[in-house]
Amino acid sequence: MQFEITSEFIDSIKDAIEEKNNVFLKEQLNEFYAQDIAIIINQLNLSHAAYIYELLDDEIAPNVLLELDDDKREDLLTTFSSKQIAEQLDNMQSDDAADLIAELPENRQEEVLSHIEDIEQASDIAELINYEDGTAGSLMAKELVSIYAFETVNACIEEIRRQTDNVDVMYAVYVVDNNERLIGMLSLKKLIISHPLARVEEIYEPDIQFVKTSTTSEEVAEIMQKYDLVVLPVIDQLGRLVGRITIDDVFDVIRETADENIQRMSGISDDVDSNDHLWRLSRARIPWLLVGMCGGIVGSRIIGSYEEQIKIHPEMAYFIPLIGAMGGNVGVQSSAIIVQGLANNTLLGDKILPKLAKELGVGVINGLICSILICGYSFLIEDWQLAATVSVALFTVILCASFLGTFVPLTMNRFKINPALATGPFVTTLNDIIGITIYFLMGRLLYTSF
Amino acid sequence: MQFEITSEFIDSIKDAIEEKNNVFLKEQLNEFYAQDIAIIINQLNLSHAAYIYELLDDEIAPNVLLELDDDKREDLLTTFSSKQIAEQLDNMQSDDAADLIAELPENRQEEVLSHIEDIEQASDIAELINYEDGTAGSLMAKELVSIYAFETVNACIEEIRRQTDNVDVMYAVYVVDNNERLIGMLSLKKLIISHPLARVEEIYEPDIQFVKTSTTSEEVAEIMQKYDLVVLPVIDQLGRLVGRITIDDVFDVIRETADENIQRMSGISDDVDSNDHLWRLSRARIPWLLVGMCGGIVGSRIIGSYEEQIKIHPEMAYFIPLIGAMGGNVGVQSSAIIVQGLANNTLLGDKILPKLAKELGVGVINGLICSILICGYSFLIEDWQLAATVSVALFTVILCASFLGTFVPLTMNRFKINPALATGPFVTTLNDIIGITIYFLMGRLLYTSF
Repeated sequence: MQFEITSEFIDSIKDAIEEKNNVFLKEQLNEFYAQDIAIIINQLNLSHAAYIYELLDDEIAPNVLLELDDDKREDLLTTFSSKQIAEQLDNMQSDDAADLIAELPENRQEEVLSHIEDIEQASDIAELINYEDGTAGSLMAKELVSIYAFETVNACIEEIRRQTDNVDVMYAVYVVDNNERLIGMLSLKKLIISHPLARVEEIYEPDIQFVKTSTTSEEVAEIMQKYDLVVLPVIDQLGRLVGRITIDDVFDVIRETADENIQRMSGISDDVDSNDHLWRLSRARIPWLLVGMCGGIVGSRIIGSYEEQIKIHPEMAYFIPLIGAMGGNVGVQSSAIIVQGLANNTLLGDKILPKLAKELGVGVINGLICSILICGYSFLIEDWQLAATVSVALFTVILCASFLGTFVPLTMNRFKINPALATGPFVTTLNDIIGITIYFLMGRLLYTSF
Repeated sequence: MQFEITSEFIDSIKDAIEEKNNVFLKEQLNEFYAQDIAIIINQLNLSHAAYIYELLDDEIAPNVLLELDDDKREDLLTTFSSKQIAEQLDNMQSDDAADLIAELPENRQEEVLSHIEDIEQASDIAELINYEDGTAGSLMAKELVSIYAFETVNACIEEIRRQTDNVDVMYAVYVVDNNERLIGMLSLKKLIISHPLARVEEIYEPDIQFVKTSTTSEEVAEIMQKYDLVVLPVIDQLGRLVGRITIDDVFDVIRETADENIQRMSGISDDVDSNDHLWRLSRARIPWLLVGMCGGIVGSRIIGSYEEQIKIHPEMAYFIPLIGAMGGNVGVQSSAIIVQGLANNTLLGDKILPKLAKELGVGVINGLICSILICGYSFLIEDWQLAATVSVALFTVILCASFLGTFVPLTMNRFKINPALATGPFVTTLNDIIGITIYFLMGRLLYTSF
């Protein structure tokens, strides 16, 4: 049932395209779902891709188009006339069509819209592209079945029958009042088991979740996850039902948010993936590298101010990387736990102080373990002054890093800055600087006192 | 509709519990969904939590129990008799009930099972707890409506009516042959719009996705996401329909996988969250700290072997943190991009070489920018030998880190090791060591040659 697409298979497809063996190709493509055909096309060059796309059934082609990689789709669309694009859009859900048309150059959008035959579809798309990115309006589809509260179950079924071509997947029927305002819903199950002459107002569920067109995507994702919803109705400012959001769209939001967090944590400042262009990848990474470099320069100034000490005790320099690395590692560990707690909403309320206390507790335990080990090692290798310096500094650095790794993301979150930013180069750089300062201060103290 | 639970509100609940003001409490709790009541209870102490739980309606109580934090639920269940727990399980979906019973101590599980009144529910739960964690069997619920292919739409609707109490949420009816083997499904929409006397075999959809009980949770999540499914049927080795997995269970799998990746990237080796016990948090973090410390010790040995050079040119020590930090930062950036591509399946096929080439391209660009800047700075501060050493070393380190950051996770993935592990302390530590080696090699080369 799950078919592994091997490079041998891709090669056989390429050969068949070269030989224009359409019988073979159609036979093969018929075996696949749109998602799998998209994976195949993603691996072909543009002319091969266009050739395969031409062969697809009208029914599956728009879905394949939607599943393609962004870059491949963009390329493929450049080979289409506006009329051809419009034909594809005519057979899509309105939300998908709006997303696709938004990818086109501005001057082409109107032309494509004018070629869409189904006037209702065209006006739905035109409405949807106006909603701001990242809002419920931009996620929703217009296709839904709604019914007035005073109607009967039978009328409801008739309405579903009438709209069956428009609405691909249906989980519920929405109930509206005479002013088209959303007042509840009726699950298909309830519809099936109710008497045909029962009135909707007697059987519908009034207590449902909904969002406004202006609700953010993140909040939509949160509500659907929290309440285990597969579909969520959207209302306008007057409370009128204007669309519905399905779970598959929210999956994308969740994945994008998770990806963004990982990138922020890794010091990548822009949303990129490994297929993006070289310059874009470079630009997304240079800002945090420069921050790291400034941190390194500050570190070099600090060490520079201890030049005399290094001349006398060059062994002080040996443990600079260890102190820096441990501060960085502990800081990242602490802040990852906090960032994750914030993302999953398990860190509620005013719990900053207990969290800090706990992280410091972990810091004390792990700091003790690490500094006892390093104390033993450096005593064996050098002298007791160095052993004392390194181990006391390491313990202090681990404690400091635990504190900063907890405090910085919590504070950033308070000020509505993405706390994932803190986990990455920021905390690492800060801990580097603080670590070196502590280390050399300890060194001066211990070497001069005894 | 979305209600913000403030600490003032929690305080008013606590006061009402102290005053045993049940009228007020019931009135308040009636306003909330199970998910919100769970958030409230999570913030109360055990005796308050038990008090509130007692007041809940039988209908909502089991759902609240499921939504509680793991620790809070565990505590609350210790205050229940086996019979009380059994009553809660009787009103849950079989998959939720099985998950909950699996949390109980082994000796208590049988006792609780024996108290469940509904024999069918008890045997469903007993079956489900036997499936291995992380498989489709452990995710699925037994509640579903299935119908024989030869039956009519009317019979199907009767069956749904009969089972309506068992199946909370229903999206489709499954079609089986005379040996109970899954052969397809019938959407509720199709059921509604079909003629009551139509036979199921004439209208059902035979071409559907399904999994076996032994399929891994990750694969289940992948299939449901890829094909935009909200429910997925599960078959046994003989092809018989034995359960179904709903999207909400898969949400949890996806979130857990994402969390795990972030933790591995941050050098946390066990699945922990910030509410876990101090010792558990410490233990999960110490392994990678020790790896980092070994790296630091290796680094100290390398620097130690250049002791004479440091005595003559103590300014070499200044830039040790900068070289280490930049290697770490670049390595993390590169590997985050790769780990993410692997997680999202956008890195298909044998694309290792082109990926490496691209990352090296990014490395060259960013390496040039950074080393030109640092060259200028160190020339102004010190002399041209140091400027040359630092800038050439930095450039080489950035290139090396780009290479390792790409190569290591790709290789780990080949050997079926979670590549997220590579992004964290492993690549950072490795780059630290390599960076220092390059730096001092360059230093010796440049200071002695000129």
